[in-house]
Amino acid sequence: MATFKVIGIAPSPYTQRVLVVLNEKGADYFLQEIDRMGNAQKKPEHLLLQPFGQIPVIQDGDFTLFESRAIVRYIADKYEGQGPSLYGKTLEERALVEQWLAVEVEEFDSPTGAAVFQLVFGPKYVGIPTDEAIVSSSLEKLAKVLDVYEAHLSKSKFLAGDFLSIADLVHLPLLFFLVTVGNRGEVVTSRKHVKAWYETMSSLPSWYKVLSLLSP
Amino acid sequence: MATFKVIGIAPSPYTQRVLVVLNEKGADYFLQEIDRMGNAQKKPEHLLLQPFGQIPVIQDGDFTLFESRAIVRYIADKYEGQGPSLYGKTLEERALVEQWLAVEVEEFDSPTGAAVFQLVFGPKYVGIPTDEAIVSSSLEKLAKVLDVYEAHLSKSKFLAGDFLSIADLVHLPLLFFLVTVGNRGEVVTSRKHVKAWYETMSSLPSWYKVLSLLSP
Repeated sequence: MATFKVIGIAPSPYTQRVLVVLNEKGADYFLQEIDRMGNAQKKPEHLLLQPFGQIPVIQDGDFTLFESRAIVRYIADKYEGQGPSLYGKTLEERALVEQWLAVEVEEFDSPTGAAVFQLVFGPKYVGIPTDEAIVSSSLEKLAKVLDVYEAHLSKSKFLAGDFLSIADLVHLPLLFFLVTVGNRGEVVTSRKHVKAWYETMSSLPSWYKVLSLLSP
Repeated sequence: MATFKVIGIAPSPYTQRVLVVLNEKGADYFLQEIDRMGNAQKKPEHLLLQPFGQIPVIQDGDFTLFESRAIVRYIADKYEGQGPSLYGKTLEERALVEQWLAVEVEEFDSPTGAAVFQLVFGPKYVGIPTDEAIVSSSLEKLAKVLDVYEAHLSKSKFLAGDFLSIADLVHLPLLFFLVTVGNRGEVVTSRKHVKAWYETMSSLPSWYKVLSLLSP
C-alpha cells in the first residue's frame, strides 16, 4: 500500500495539481477525500495538519506538508530520478521554473480562480449564482496576463523552456475548468500559442487519470 | 566588478528581500536603481526584461530572472556552498521552506502589503493620504495570520525549523516598514514569539546593510 497520502478533494483544482504531478512522475499514492460540505477542513483534527484550514495536505510516511505549490516542488525533488524531470536540469532552468511558478501565483491564479469560482464552483457546490460582472472583469485581467504568456510561448514550447515542468502543470486544472466546465475558453483558445500549450497539457495521460476521479 | 546586477528600487520591500538574501550569503552584487517616479518599470526597455512591468529583476552574467520569490531561491541555490544554508539541508527541510514561502505569498503578503502601502508608500511616494479603514481591515486579517505564526514559532525558532531560511527573510522588509516607519507594530510586538522572530531578523548585519542604502 502506498504511504504517500494526499488529503484533499477530487474536484479541487489545488488538489488536482498535486495529483497530476504525482501521475506524471508515476508515483504511488492514495487520495483521502475530506468532506468539504461538512466543512471538514476547518475541524480541529484537520487544523493540526493545516493551521489555515485548507487543502491539500500530504503525508509521506511521517512527513506532513501543506500548500499545493510547496507539495508539487517536493514531489519534483523527491522523484527527481523517476519519470520526466519537472524542475529543469540546470540551476538556470530551475530558476526559470521558479520564475513562472511565481507568475502563476502573482498574476494568473487570482483572476482565473475568480472566474472559475463564479462559473463552476459557486453555482455547482455553494449554491451561489454566477455574477457575470465578476466573470467579465476577471477574464479581462486574465486576457492581459495571457498576452504575456502568448508572446513568451511563441518563443518556447513550455513556460520555463522546451521541457514540461511543474510551472506549467500548476496552471492546468483552473484552465481546464475555465475552458470545459465553465465553457469560457475564448481567452485561451483565441491565443495560438497559449492554446497549443493548453492542449498539450490537457492531453497528457497524467491529466486523464486525474479526470477519471471526477464523477459526472 | 560584480557581474550580479539587481535592477530595483532601494526602498522597495521586494528589492530589499533580494538584497538581504545576497548580503546574508556574502555575495558580490550591485544595485541599479530605476526611476520609479519616471515609471521606468513600464518602459519598453524594462518590459524586455520583465514583461509585467515590475521590479526587481536580476542579471547574473547573461542570465536574466524576475520575480523576487524566484530570485531569492536562485541565490540560495547558487550560493549553496557559501554562507549559511538558507534552504535547509534535507529534502524535508527544503520542502518546509517552500511551505512557508507559499504561506508568505498566500496569506501574509496581501494584508501586510496593503497596510504598509496605506501607512508608508502611498503618503510618502504617491501622494495618497492614509485610508485608516483599509489599515484596520488589513491589520485584522494580518492578526489572524500571525496567530498561526505565533503558535508555530512557539515550537521552532524560525519558520521552517531551527535555521534561518529564505522563507523567514522574505517577510522581513514589510514587517520592518509596518513596525518602524509605519509605526503600527502592535500586531507583531504583542505576540511573544513573532516579536522575537522579527527582532532576530531585523538585527542581522545583512539587514543593516540593506537599510544603509536608504536615505533618511
